[in-house]
Amino acid sequence: MSFRIEHDTMGEVQVPADKYWGAQTERSRNNFKIGPEASMPKEIIHAFGYLKKAAALANNELGVLSKDKTDLIAKACDEVIAGQLDDQFPLVIWQTGSGTQSNMNGNEVIANRGHVIGGGNLLDDKKSLHPNDDVNKSQSSNDTYPTAMHIAAYKQAVEVTIPGLQKLRNTLASKAESWGDIVKTGRTHFMDATPLTLKQEFSGYVQQIDNGLRAINNALEMIKELALGGTAVGTGLNTPAGYDVLVAQKIADLTGLPFVTAPNKFEALAAHDAMVELSGAYKRVSVSLMKIANDIRMLSSGPRCGIGEIIIPDNEPGSSIMPGKVNPTQPEALTMVCAQVMGNDVAVSIGASNGHFELNVFKPVIAANVLQSGRLIGDACVSFNDKCAEGIEPNRPVIQQHMENSLMLVTALNPHIGYENAAKIAKKAHKENKTLREAAIETGLLTDEQFTAWVKPEEMVGSLK
Amino acid sequence: MSFRIEHDTMGEVQVPADKYWGAQTERSRNNFKIGPEASMPKEIIHAFGYLKKAAALANNELGVLSKDKTDLIAKACDEVIAGQLDDQFPLVIWQTGSGTQSNMNGNEVIANRGHVIGGGNLLDDKKSLHPNDDVNKSQSSNDTYPTAMHIAAYKQAVEVTIPGLQKLRNTLASKAESWGDIVKTGRTHFMDATPLTLKQEFSGYVQQIDNGLRAINNALEMIKELALGGTAVGTGLNTPAGYDVLVAQKIADLTGLPFVTAPNKFEALAAHDAMVELSGAYKRVSVSLMKIANDIRMLSSGPRCGIGEIIIPDNEPGSSIMPGKVNPTQPEALTMVCAQVMGNDVAVSIGASNGHFELNVFKPVIAANVLQSGRLIGDACVSFNDKCAEGIEPNRPVIQQHMENSLMLVTALNPHIGYENAAKIAKKAHKENKTLREAAIETGLLTDEQFTAWVKPEEMVGSLK
Amino acid sequence: MSFRIEHDTMGEVQVPADKYWGAQTERSRNNFKIGPEASMPKEIIHAFGYLKKAAALANNELGVLSKDKTDLIAKACDEVIAGQLDDQFPLVIWQTGSGTQSNMNGNEVIANRGHVIGGGNLLDDKKSLHPNDDVNKSQSSNDTYPTAMHIAAYKQAVEVTIPGLQKLRNTLASKAESWGDIVKTGRTHFMDATPLTLKQEFSGYVQQIDNGLRAINNALEMIKELALGGTAVGTGLNTPAGYDVLVAQKIADLTGLPFVTAPNKFEALAAHDAMVELSGAYKRVSVSLMKIANDIRMLSSGPRCGIGEIIIPDNEPGSSIMPGKVNPTQPEALTMVCAQVMGNDVAVSIGASNGHFELNVFKPVIAANVLQSGRLIGDACVSFNDKCAEGIEPNRPVIQQHMENSLMLVTALNPHIGYENAAKIAKKAHKENKTLREAAIETGLLTDEQFTAWVKPEEMVGSLK
Amino acid sequence: MSFRIEHDTMGEVQVPADKYWGAQTERSRNNFKIGPEASMPKEIIHAFGYLKKAAALANNELGVLSKDKTDLIAKACDEVIAGQLDDQFPLVIWQTGSGTQSNMNGNEVIANRGHVIGGGNLLDDKKSLHPNDDVNKSQSSNDTYPTAMHIAAYKQAVEVTIPGLQKLRNTLASKAESWGDIVKTGRTHFMDATPLTLKQEFSGYVQQIDNGLRAINNALEMIKELALGGTAVGTGLNTPAGYDVLVAQKIADLTGLPFVTAPNKFEALAAHDAMVELSGAYKRVSVSLMKIANDIRMLSSGPRCGIGEIIIPDNEPGSSIMPGKVNPTQPEALTMVCAQVMGNDVAVSIGASNGHFELNVFKPVIAANVLQSGRLIGDACVSFNDKCAEGIEPNRPVIQQHMENSLMLVTALNPHIGYENAAKIAKKAHKENKTLREAAIETGLLTDEQFTAWVKPEEMVGSLK
Repeated sequence: MSFRIEHDTMGEVQVPADKYWGAQTERSRNNFKIGPEASMPKEIIHAFGYLKKAAALANNELGVLSKDKTDLIAKACDEVIAGQLDDQFPLVIWQTGSGTQSNMNGNEVIANRGHVIGGGNLLDDKKSLHPNDDVNKSQSSNDTYPTAMHIAAYKQAVEVTIPGLQKLRNTLASKAESWGDIVKTGRTHFMDATPLTLKQEFSGYVQQIDNGLRAINNALEMIKELALGGTAVGTGLNTPAGYDVLVAQKIADLTGLPFVTAPNKFEALAAHDAMVELSGAYKRVSVSLMKIANDIRMLSSGPRCGIGEIIIPDNEPGSSIMPGKVNPTQPEALTMVCAQVMGNDVAVSIGASNGHFELNVFKPVIAANVLQSGRLIGDACVSFNDKCAEGIEPNRPVIQQHMENSLMLVTALNPHIGYENAAKIAKKAHKENKTLREAAIETGLLTDEQFTAWVKPEEMVGSLK
Repeated sequence: MSFRIEHDTMGEVQVPADKYWGAQTERSRNNFKIGPEASMPKEIIHAFGYLKKAAALANNELGVLSKDKTDLIAKACDEVIAGQLDDQFPLVIWQTGSGTQSNMNGNEVIANRGHVIGGGNLLDDKKSLHPNDDVNKSQSSNDTYPTAMHIAAYKQAVEVTIPGLQKLRNTLASKAESWGDIVKTGRTHFMDATPLTLKQEFSGYVQQIDNGLRAINNALEMIKELALGGTAVGTGLNTPAGYDVLVAQKIADLTGLPFVTAPNKFEALAAHDAMVELSGAYKRVSVSLMKIANDIRMLSSGPRCGIGEIIIPDNEPGSSIMPGKVNPTQPEALTMVCAQVMGNDVAVSIGASNGHFELNVFKPVIAANVLQSGRLIGDACVSFNDKCAEGIEPNRPVIQQHMENSLMLVTALNPHIGYENAAKIAKKAHKENKTLREAAIETGLLTDEQFTAWVKPEEMVGSLK
Repeated sequence: MSFRIEHDTMGEVQVPADKYWGAQTERSRNNFKIGPEASMPKEIIHAFGYLKKAAALANNELGVLSKDKTDLIAKACDEVIAGQLDDQFPLVIWQTGSGTQSNMNGNEVIANRGHVIGGGNLLDDKKSLHPNDDVNKSQSSNDTYPTAMHIAAYKQAVEVTIPGLQKLRNTLASKAESWGDIVKTGRTHFMDATPLTLKQEFSGYVQQIDNGLRAINNALEMIKELALGGTAVGTGLNTPAGYDVLVAQKIADLTGLPFVTAPNKFEALAAHDAMVELSGAYKRVSVSLMKIANDIRMLSSGPRCGIGEIIIPDNEPGSSIMPGKVNPTQPEALTMVCAQVMGNDVAVSIGASNGHFELNVFKPVIAANVLQSGRLIGDACVSFNDKCAEGIEPNRPVIQQHMENSLMLVTALNPHIGYENAAKIAKKAHKENKTLREAAIETGLLTDEQFTAWVKPEEMVGSLK
Repeated sequence: MSFRIEHDTMGEVQVPADKYWGAQTERSRNNFKIGPEASMPKEIIHAFGYLKKAAALANNELGVLSKDKTDLIAKACDEVIAGQLDDQFPLVIWQTGSGTQSNMNGNEVIANRGHVIGGGNLLDDKKSLHPNDDVNKSQSSNDTYPTAMHIAAYKQAVEVTIPGLQKLRNTLASKAESWGDIVKTGRTHFMDATPLTLKQEFSGYVQQIDNGLRAINNALEMIKELALGGTAVGTGLNTPAGYDVLVAQKIADLTGLPFVTAPNKFEALAAHDAMVELSGAYKRVSVSLMKIANDIRMLSSGPRCGIGEIIIPDNEPGSSIMPGKVNPTQPEALTMVCAQVMGNDVAVSIGASNGHFELNVFKPVIAANVLQSGRLIGDACVSFNDKCAEGIEPNRPVIQQHMENSLMLVTALNPHIGYENAAKIAKKAHKENKTLREAAIETGLLTDEQFTAWVKPEEMVGSLK
């Protein structure tokens, strides 16, 4: 491998000759060999593209950066945004907790790439752009990295996480809508309970996801606030007047998303509670999805020794040893995702609680976990939707059989004969392995006609929609 | 101890003669000897008072409960609400996961107490009120317990948690307001950084709490939705038409809080994601408080070998062996509370993710953890406010000395001589243990006059308020 | 209420006249009104009784405390140990993070109670014992509180937690032993799988608990190490030579438990990783118990629309609205406990990770959570054992019916006709709703006789015991 | 891209022509597009290489697999083990929870690669090896995947995690050893306390890591037990007699690690509590490392406005805006790793607690988290060791100055003048900003000579080593 010499304030460093990065990136590569390389989320890298371009545009508009430099930076940033320079970002999550080295990775790659775009050569002594003085102008890692976190998190939420949830929600709602006539046994404590319709059962899932989406959107209200303009400690040192508002507007324009400058830059650098809130919303929705996926796999259990009230698609052979076995694999993938998101939320909270003075230095671990959670939820919902939810069918004969057998239809008798008498009938039927009707009549508490008139499962589901 | 005989659908049970509870409560006492007795939160007990009264009023208004019975129930409920019957609720958190036994504890106590209020005797064969048929009319544990959870959580949030946070927030804001002229060294990565005012530093804390309050209020929007009216599985079986809306209105009237009936009762019984969201908001605010308390104890560290930039009140002897020692005990109590709340959030999430079919049966553990978190945050904020925050004073001589010594004032030179030259000056000063001014002049990069003109700490804090 | 005046190094304080505690306890009562009063675990209070007595005995033996004072301290400590002075310990968990105030509470109560035991009066100007100079001699809160944590945790583990687990383990083992002849369908992914015996199924639970007990015992090896003798920062300042070893021996003698002095007192004060490990072992066992309890409640689900392969005891009416309903309430209580323990573990870990320099100041929250976990596990196992596990009975007709229906018996054909052919048979049976035998013969892949010879459920469970 | 047709029991599938994988792998690729592709940990893939080879060898030895097939399988497995076929494993973590598809991925790649090694062609109609009947012989995903988990976790622990911890431990121990003469001020509650040596302070860190290593080794005792031989549900169906013991021995031989067959296969399939225990040990050690890294960064804080008692290496420019800034980046990376490990532990526990009946179906998420934790700890310890710990130097002038200033030297006077008098001196010195000596003499409680004789910091560190 051939190298070129780059330098920073600590001296010279050998850098692979064909790479755009510079001395500080290379130092970080060597100083932090922790886990797989290039683990810093790509969403963060691309977000740096947006913010560096926005900063250059704002700097230019405010008269502190030349038109030429601005253009070169903007062009290089466009390549970063498009993912064309992904292989120029070799750094890991487990670096300095301010993300300084990834910020410098961005500065160096954009400076060098901009220089080359402008016709220069990586070996030129003098470059068109300086990583710190030009690309990082009016910025600090301390305000750029949290800005990149928010851009990446917001974009992902609206492009991946929310659409995935929405898709699953709509499928469940549409399924539910068609099942209003299917009366089934309810189950509480895993035990037979009074009936409801399959539509009602699934409507609960829809409500859960709707509420989760509401929580995510609430959290995004805080994520849209950007730290940029706070620079080193939140005071905005070395930024031109009006820069913070303008640069947030530029980012909003470039992304088409409603970003604004944070009302308090000290909070925006030293705390990442907005990310904690978003992570908490993702955790909330994972709690919901865990419940939904568990229900669906248990309702489809069997085929002969389980509940078997719904049928889910067979997507693959289920077992390497048991021939013909079919398993609820999509619910399994989804519930594993939920477990991960719940764990990630703890990592995020611990990191966020350990900020000190003017800076939280758990930024990369916070970002990586929130972004993994958002991605996994979005992807897993789509997978679960496409390969499972859309294909769910009721198993009407089983549903019917269970519903007729359930002793809890006895509850309909409470208003007529009282709770204690009704209990006697249920216990008698259970003990003597009889139908409710048989047991009821044998007790003498009501007649066959009364039983027919009072115990109507289809009327037991009706007070609420 | 003397006993009387009570019965339920399973038979007869001996109950302490002087207690209002009945057979099912007594069974639960014997069946669940787990942890200290009577651990079911009192907030839940009192909430049952509200909801049982509201249910009776709604039942009466809808024509299914007589005026006499309604009056007796209402009077007994008033005593429950007032805490006068707290010693009649001996059950533990660790019972059935639907909270059925605490619901029955309420039904039994209210029925028996109502009977006695009406002139009856606990030994009467026939009682004025039946626990199930009258007190529990139009209800199930499955909708009452989650309703009690929401009533208790909402009341506590607005009476304890939010006021505590607000009080601390206001003190910090008022302190900050008076410190606008105190320029101090910033710290990032625990290392000296560019200056900011003490007002700015504390303004970040205020913003953190404001954002946390916003998240709590967002969560309360879901907590105000009540499950009552769903009865056994969410269908509203055995409730009169219009009951769910009316009973929520009654509860709103009785509590003065904006409760409404939940739009989907299936979700309201089977999931407690609203409680997960509230717990998540409490966790979010604990992450903030952990940061704030840590900063304050580190800023006050010393008195001679630490940072010592602020002085906090001495409330007690700090050490049983080191004479004269004073410790930041209020921040310690607060951070311990934060650790607890973060743990509680995991317990809540695990419980909530394990609901199945028509019912979540981790209700009591969810309720207990959310209520402990809400109480501890509220109380600890008041304690921290009254015994610490209100007494915080800046230690101006130390602040001044640190600020003058900080090498990071060099950052002001970036726009004049560039990042790399500025770095040379800082490194020289550090290595040779000189002042920045001395090092700057010795490098020949600027003059004494220029240093004076360019390095003005009080102007380094000013771009943002 | 009447008061007397007590003083400490900060001045005078009014104390309730009938209480043994002194100035510092009273200050703490007033300074920390957080959560319910007297929340500091009683196990910690009693452990202080042991250690204060042991310290007095060691001090006397090493010549730094008179025989008279030693005797008075020892007598007062005996009352603390016996729980007779529980109402003299009003302080909360949420105090200083070193537990100094509870240590002083102990010192003050023992000093005053000792003085009274010796014939003195609480109003005497001069007392027989000084809280710091006598009762706390050769000690600091910094080494006493962690010592109390370890004494309390060890005692509880061997008296409550382990016996509870052992009891449940033995019941499950004995049940399993009697079920070796019951062949049942296995279930993987909630789907029908190849058969096993009910004994085998339950033997897995026994192994889980055995492994959990092993982990707890491993953790106790670290808990038996005591910090006492380290005093303020671990150096043992102000202790006589040999004190640390001797005082640990005294505690071992008094408790009958194998305590030893910690090999490194700096670790013992500044870190509570041993408590983290014990909490982790409790979490591990909760993970196991969650699985076991879930299995048991799902195996007993029904009675008519679930799995119903085992029958568990009916302990109470299950529903306030559904007459005759019986629910798996003991598994519910146990799984709620498991959720709590898993949350507590996070609180413990967060607290323990935030120690700084020579002292961890999250001691009370760590202690409270570990002790709650240990208590809940022990109690819940006994409750689950006595009220559920001991009464579990197999439902042989249901087990037989499920076993015969399971399509996964087809796996026995793999060695004879290959996985793919076997799969054809299973799929055919499922699709055409036939028995395996019918489907097998219709495919022509084997004869009726071969089916009989090859598919023998009772031989499919036998390779491993 | 060109394709070939592969089939499984569900029919035909198009597979990329140049890939060794077959129909089931391809189905899974299409069915689970969740997160980045090929996320299944490479350690698991390589572990499958060991176990498939061991199974073939055991099958051959027990007479159920031909020598020819065994040889082909073994050769293909050797390539898997060596990482030469890593690009043949495209599946993700988020698949079926039994890991069946990754097991089949292994079976298919080994069968096809074995066929090619034997001279065959991927397009041959008939292949030398069948994925299920040969490569998976005597196996099920249900026992292979947990076996792969244990092989991967054990190997990683002894090759990466433990050596990393050991390296850091040894550096800290060796540093400590050389600092026995450096007396410094202790700090408790962030406040000045009695002195200790720098050796003593660091000896606590060494003890923490030693105890953590002990916990990891305890956990490995359970990890060495392998599920292989249990097949579908733990009964060992379709395995030859003696297979389980033999195959574990083969794995032990191939890996050089002390693997044995699990004593109870039902537990080994249905529960992954051993992984919970290992994760818990990793969490325990992360709690320790968090404390150690925090201490080191706070001790090195400054350079002018912090504690500054130690100096850590400057590895890179610390700030993109503040010239000359140096930050404790290695401690930051390490503490971020600790936060991640603590979060991962929750994900593992949640997954493990949700196993049901004969199988836990959160295997991949459990494996991925434990393996990430083990890797990150090992790597981060080496990084922290090489780039930080080895270069730590005491800053003797600062240490000396702090030590002399500390008021807590007054503690040495307790045995001479009592706690209360000593407190008066400390308070006077603090209030009047005097030295302890000055304040002591002014009180008249002792003479200058007595002060000299009694207050000797170097003698205050000596009772314990």
